[in-house]
Amino acid sequence: SLRALAARTHGPDVVPTGDAYGALFRPPLAGLDSPLLAATCDGVGTKLLVARACGDYRGLGQDLVAMNVNDLLPRGARPLFFLDYIAVGRLADLEARDGRPGALSDVAQGMVAACPQVGCALIGGETAEMPDLYRPGDFDLAGFAVGLVDAARVPAGDVAAGDVVLGLAANGVHANGFSLIRRVLSDAGIEYGQPLPGMQSPIGAMLLQPTALYVAPVLALMSQVRVKAAAHVTGGGILRRARGLVPDGLRVELDPTAFARPPIFDVLAALGRITDTEMACTFNMGLGFLVVVDADAAAQVVAQGAAVGADEPSRWLQVGRIVRGPRGAVLGHAAV
Amino acid sequence: SLRALAARTHGPDVVPTGDAYGALFRPPLAGLDSPLLAATCDGVGTKLLVARACGDYRGLGQDLVAMNVNDLLPRGARPLFFLDYIAVGRLADLEARDGRPGALSDVAQGMVAACPQVGCALIGGETAEMPDLYRPGDFDLAGFAVGLVDAARVPAGDVAAGDVVLGLAANGVHANGFSLIRRVLSDAGIEYGQPLPGMQSPIGAMLLQPTALYVAPVLALMSQVRVKAAAHVTGGGILRRARGLVPDGLRVELDPTAFARPPIFDVLAALGRITDTEMACTFNMGLGFLVVVDADAAAQVVAQGAAVGADEPSRWLQVGRIVRGPRGAVLGHAAV
Repeated sequence: SLRALAARTHGPDVVPTGDAYGALFRPPLAGLDSPLLAATCDGVGTKLLVARACGDYRGLGQDLVAMNVNDLLPRGARPLFFLDYIAVGRLADLEARDGRPGALSDVAQGMVAACPQVGCALIGGETAEMPDLYRPGDFDLAGFAVGLVDAARVPAGDVAAGDVVLGLAANGVHANGFSLIRRVLSDAGIEYGQPLPGMQSPIGAMLLQPTALYVAPVLALMSQVRVKAAAHVTGGGILRRARGLVPDGLRVELDPTAFARPPIFDVLAALGRITDTEMACTFNMGLGFLVVVDADAAAQVVAQGAAVGADEPSRWLQVGRIVRGPRGAVLGHAAV
Repeated sequence: SLRALAARTHGPDVVPTGDAYGALFRPPLAGLDSPLLAATCDGVGTKLLVARACGDYRGLGQDLVAMNVNDLLPRGARPLFFLDYIAVGRLADLEARDGRPGALSDVAQGMVAACPQVGCALIGGETAEMPDLYRPGDFDLAGFAVGLVDAARVPAGDVAAGDVVLGLAANGVHANGFSLIRRVLSDAGIEYGQPLPGMQSPIGAMLLQPTALYVAPVLALMSQVRVKAAAHVTGGGILRRARGLVPDGLRVELDPTAFARPPIFDVLAALGRITDTEMACTFNMGLGFLVVVDADAAAQVVAQGAAVGADEPSRWLQVGRIVRGPRGAVLGHAAV
């Protein structure tokens, strides 16, 4: 059961109560001068309809955890615990059948595998069966995460011209832009089992790659240098999230040659005849997390290289800079 | 907007970040020896389908807050903050139209009115628009609450024979049992706009009475006497929740003459020909919250009377006792 699986994510900070989904949590306050809690709530949007169409729910649990814990990081907060809400039409439709694992079991396994990777305990949740609201086989997922940060470590937003933007690679489209993706593929008559033009893997498998977990590289960076502002690249895409890093009078200039643009974005843009700006206001375009640091800190990070994580998506790339100008963000021909 | 409304629930513990739905929270740790966090996640189930059928969404926000913050209380935790997840087919279908407020605005107003009553700040949430998952006009709600308790104040579960059960009145069916209610009314051909046999108010209005907020009377009681165990009466009804209060070898005997049984339960039982035990394993039967205290503490509470809250549902009633026997709970002819 999900409760038994959840217990596997419980470290020494979890205080058992006899119910893995009603556990208490001892926040690790030692050494903090002014502890603050951060909290996030997010779902996986219509990525779950693509998972359903592909019959492959294995990545959704990590997506749900990632969409929430990554959202704690711009406040400097490390994740403490996670809860899930699962709403279904009929549980029986989503359980194991004909020797295949059920959707909910796959989602649960994904959550339980992702939580320990980010130092987070799964301590609660709710599974609601509502046959008159959800059609047979349909379900929805929402997650909630709580994190902890010392007040002095919250990024202060004091971004200035000359600062440097560092980024972490995305490992796919993550869990945003799926309404547009589904429309483009449907209009083009492309099935999820087919490869996209010029590619080898089926499009469904590419799209369902689970969202990267950025907790380790972001917290490692924050322990080494002072981060002024940070953004998890989700709804609004790379450009709107980059714009959110700066106040009036400053612009974010992102360098399209500084990071790899996964080919799926070019194929989607061509298929849907989508402008560069619409693409960059919808998708991460290859960067899943951004931070702003001063030039000295950026040089230190680049010099250290491997120290903050050698492998993508844990390797920090220098991807842009802060310049004076009307508030906005620019990436190649795309701008807001 | 919901974000602007949420800011109204922010007290001095909320640390603004420029985004009311991404606020940080300073937990009030002063005086706590060993602070623990509790967290809950719950929705309102198919009560929202009754709200939709009645076109009356005003109570659902309080239901959502109550179902979550009341669930913190059995751990002794006081609510700190709340987040909401709202998933809709199309936002436009749920917005104000023809001079009537929209469903989501009513839900938001309800949450924002309920949170300050329980000392809780609304600091985040997500509204997801998913037209291919939810039908036009359909939506789902989930809530998430975090609370704080000193380890020494967590009810220890050390219930013994001779202990006394105190209860708080329910102000209606709250947000449980709606699948059964909807089936009974549908089978009987009763519309939500009609009064039930022998009653005056339309059944819809009675059913949509929002769930009582038990935070104030429970925390007041816990500050005065040692509570050994506590239960928010939700899924599983009064009997299964009462049974959860005791370990093997003890029974909860509830006295049906000690509290008022709202007449709606008798009417539902008669219409659906539902046994006493099924009723008491589905509905609260008139008691929304239970605690177990020793006999001395019970006498003290009853002697103080008004001190812990004079008005229902804030008045503590002595509703039962703990006896030796096979683990279970009994209420009149109903037993588990």
